Amino acid sequence: MADIEDLKADLGDIPIVTDRAKVQLKSRDFYWYSPVLKRQLEGVCADLVVEPRDEAEVIRSLRACFRHRLPVTVRGGGSGNYGQAMPLRRGAILDLSRLDRIREVGLGRVRAEAGARLARVDQLCQADSGQELRFHPSTLKMGTIGGFVAGGSSGVGSITWGILRDRGNILGLRVITMEDEPRAIELRGDAIQKVNHAYGTNGVITEVEMPLAPAHAWVDLMVGFEDFTTAVRFADALARQDGLTKKLITPLAAPIPELYFRPLKSRIPDGASVVLLMIAAPWLEAFRDFLSVWPGKILLERAADDPRRKGLPIYELSWNHTTLHALRIDPSVTYLQVLYPPPAHVELALKMHRHFGDEVMSHLELVRFDGQIACFGLPIVRFTTEDRLDEIIRYHEDHGCPIFNPHAFTLEEGGMKRVDRSHLAFKREADPLGLLNPGKMLAWDSPELDVSRQSYLYRSLEG
Amino acid sequence: MADIEDLKADLGDIPIVTDRAKVQLKSRDFYWYSPVLKRQLEGVCADLVVEPRDEAEVIRSLRACFRHRLPVTVRGGGSGNYGQAMPLRRGAILDLSRLDRIREVGLGRVRAEAGARLARVDQLCQADSGQELRFHPSTLKMGTIGGFVAGGSSGVGSITWGILRDRGNILGLRVITMEDEPRAIELRGDAIQKVNHAYGTNGVITEVEMPLAPAHAWVDLMVGFEDFTTAVRFADALARQDGLTKKLITPLAAPIPELYFRPLKSRIPDGASVVLLMIAAPWLEAFRDFLSVWPGKILLERAADDPRRKGLPIYELSWNHTTLHALRIDPSVTYLQVLYPPPAHVELALKMHRHFGDEVMSHLELVRFDGQIACFGLPIVRFTTEDRLDEIIRYHEDHGCPIFNPHAFTLEEGGMKRVDRSHLAFKREADPLGLLNPGKMLAWDSPELDVSRQSYLYRSLEG
Repeated sequence: MADIEDLKADLGDIPIVTDRAKVQLKSRDFYWYSPVLKRQLEGVCADLVVEPRDEAEVIRSLRACFRHRLPVTVRGGGSGNYGQAMPLRRGAILDLSRLDRIREVGLGRVRAEAGARLARVDQLCQADSGQELRFHPSTLKMGTIGGFVAGGSSGVGSITWGILRDRGNILGLRVITMEDEPRAIELRGDAIQKVNHAYGTNGVITEVEMPLAPAHAWVDLMVGFEDFTTAVRFADALARQDGLTKKLITPLAAPIPELYFRPLKSRIPDGASVVLLMIAAPWLEAFRDFLSVWPGKILLERAADDPRRKGLPIYELSWNHTTLHALRIDPSVTYLQVLYPPPAHVELALKMHRHFGDEVMSHLELVRFDGQIACFGLPIVRFTTEDRLDEIIRYHEDHGCPIFNPHAFTLEEGGMKRVDRSHLAFKREADPLGLLNPGKMLAWDSPELDVSRQSYLYRSLEG
Repeated sequence: MADIEDLKADLGDIPIVTDRAKVQLKSRDFYWYSPVLKRQLEGVCADLVVEPRDEAEVIRSLRACFRHRLPVTVRGGGSGNYGQAMPLRRGAILDLSRLDRIREVGLGRVRAEAGARLARVDQLCQADSGQELRFHPSTLKMGTIGGFVAGGSSGVGSITWGILRDRGNILGLRVITMEDEPRAIELRGDAIQKVNHAYGTNGVITEVEMPLAPAHAWVDLMVGFEDFTTAVRFADALARQDGLTKKLITPLAAPIPELYFRPLKSRIPDGASVVLLMIAAPWLEAFRDFLSVWPGKILLERAADDPRRKGLPIYELSWNHTTLHALRIDPSVTYLQVLYPPPAHVELALKMHRHFGDEVMSHLELVRFDGQIACFGLPIVRFTTEDRLDEIIRYHEDHGCPIFNPHAFTLEEGGMKRVDRSHLAFKREADPLGLLNPGKMLAWDSPELDVSRQSYLYRSLEG
């Protein structure tokens, strides 16, 4: 990198990091969840990290990088799982974690800078007006609000509010273009979808306006069942209780809990499947009566103010954290991301469960999906070979369960985002030289590739 | 009534009304929506009205009436439509509208005396902590919270929260028994269902604990369509937008709007079908983008603080108020209450619409029903004869659309409530002599009758 000294001069007093070990650290995320990505991305490393402190410094950073034609990969908390923020073609990591001001809290909405940690947004909204984000990834403490929008899709709360791609789950975004003279553009309404879950390939998100929900006193529960089938039917029936306020419904098949939930080992009977739950305190009585006709036993119950919740909130056993707990015990496992589409989601999930046995251990997340209850799956896979992993993926897809492949680092192969003409048009406008997170958007790099057979979580804006 | 003077002595300083005209007025509700009930209930009148001012006076009133074996029919705001609070066997009307204290507002819950008007509960919860009731009948201003629980079922907000019978939509009830020594019993959890929608036949509700939702700045909208089919498909698609916060989705077929919505006449194009909406302000932009691909035109839009909303909030054109507007213009019409079950609710509703034409004018209310989107219907019927009305009802039921008959005054014939052993057992305990609202529970008065062929909105507690 001959230009680094020139670039530094252009950046002036904007903090940068060039120490190789530190840059390496900031060039990574949880890509190692996937043995495939681990092999593919192991060597990825940026040339430097730029740490702007406000939007003006973001603009100055982008202007400088554009001048030097340096690729720029934006990073939030680094809690992605598919290399979303990993710089495939070196260049600069634009670390936005210093842009962490909460701009404004109103009834039903918050506006914050992109680098604000999700947990801090929740704390401030709670203190301001008893509100919190509608949903968040299990990486609440680590993830940033901009990173969630750029690289996430759903999470704890999706059982009530659906997923990020749903209208109304992001209210506004402010993005900076990568040009000679970078511009700030406010996107609202459907236009938000151009940039939502685009890994920062077509603009740098500097501010986010998100909807809020009441910050209930959530009670953490783990309910044990002797068989997974009953656990899933219970979870689905609970999801259909429209009057019962809940934030998490996570069925986990044996042996996941007993093998991998070390901190709760003493509470988990041999062979138990469990359902993790967050229920708002006023509805706990109603929940108990609902549970009473099911053969489930409460293995753990912690009120919102239980100090043990700070150390291990139940949501840190759910969503992508389930996989993390498994990897800590057994580094050879990996996972998949599945959609079991409604209305047959329960039968589909149980069919896959029975077919694969312990090779693919079922982990479901109940969600709202287009106005219906459905399941996402994040099953834990005993990894043997990449070929076998492909076989497992194919079997799911052949049986009507689309896979959002967490073993691929491009937007299209991940399968969540259909990149259509409007995305490409916006990328042409916002990043004419293709310097933002290069290598992540196949439609830009390899427009001749046909990936149209895929199911997409984020559907085309073209309908 | 020879005992009236004795009774008065027992009642002491508890206010009573014996003036015939005033007693007549308080012996009625909106039963005249139904030509059948109008004929059957026209002559119903109590002997007196008792107006206790607190729970102690309720207990004294019940003790006195029990001593004189006088039937007691409890009344709230008198906004029922099927004679719920009409005293079939004379006796006393127990008017609870002076029991109107709001006991406590907390996060997600309010506890109030039964006679508190729904609108006042909303105002106080709003002022206290930006909260409001999850849903309410269109008679928000007139109805009481106890009356809603005893005689209502769903309403404005049911598109998000489901209906009263759903777990968690009532958190607690305090009821007084009708005995020698009346007792106060607190019902919580599933036990609430014994008394919910029981017309005060098995206990006098004195306090209610209800769940709360955020009090959003609701925007009233009326969207016009050239054809009803498109209006219904639009309404259903909007209902499925999990991220878009809404409180009302009401499709109304032409010619309902142009014939009956006199105050808005100038805004309604000839032949227009409309959808009435309440959308929370932060999601209005998302709603506009959602609307943009539909051929619907916004005919009316009023922000939460628009002074014209005070005079005619949009919800006063919806639910049972639609029928009221029609009756004001054409006293010869009546209505039905229909369930179009999911997932075929749209097709079923359109099938009935096409079959009956203008004889049964479609009025739908989108709701959440067991975790799915569904439609209730309150079609306006051009009444000819009772036989024809029965035919219309039968046609709906033969085509898979259960009718909750608003032309019947018993719990069972209304079809909302299946009275099972647990209800009867509770009535035996709470009202051993059958003095509470006598004549409304067939299972008590005529246990030999078989009404089991009906579909019930409030299912059996026995599952």
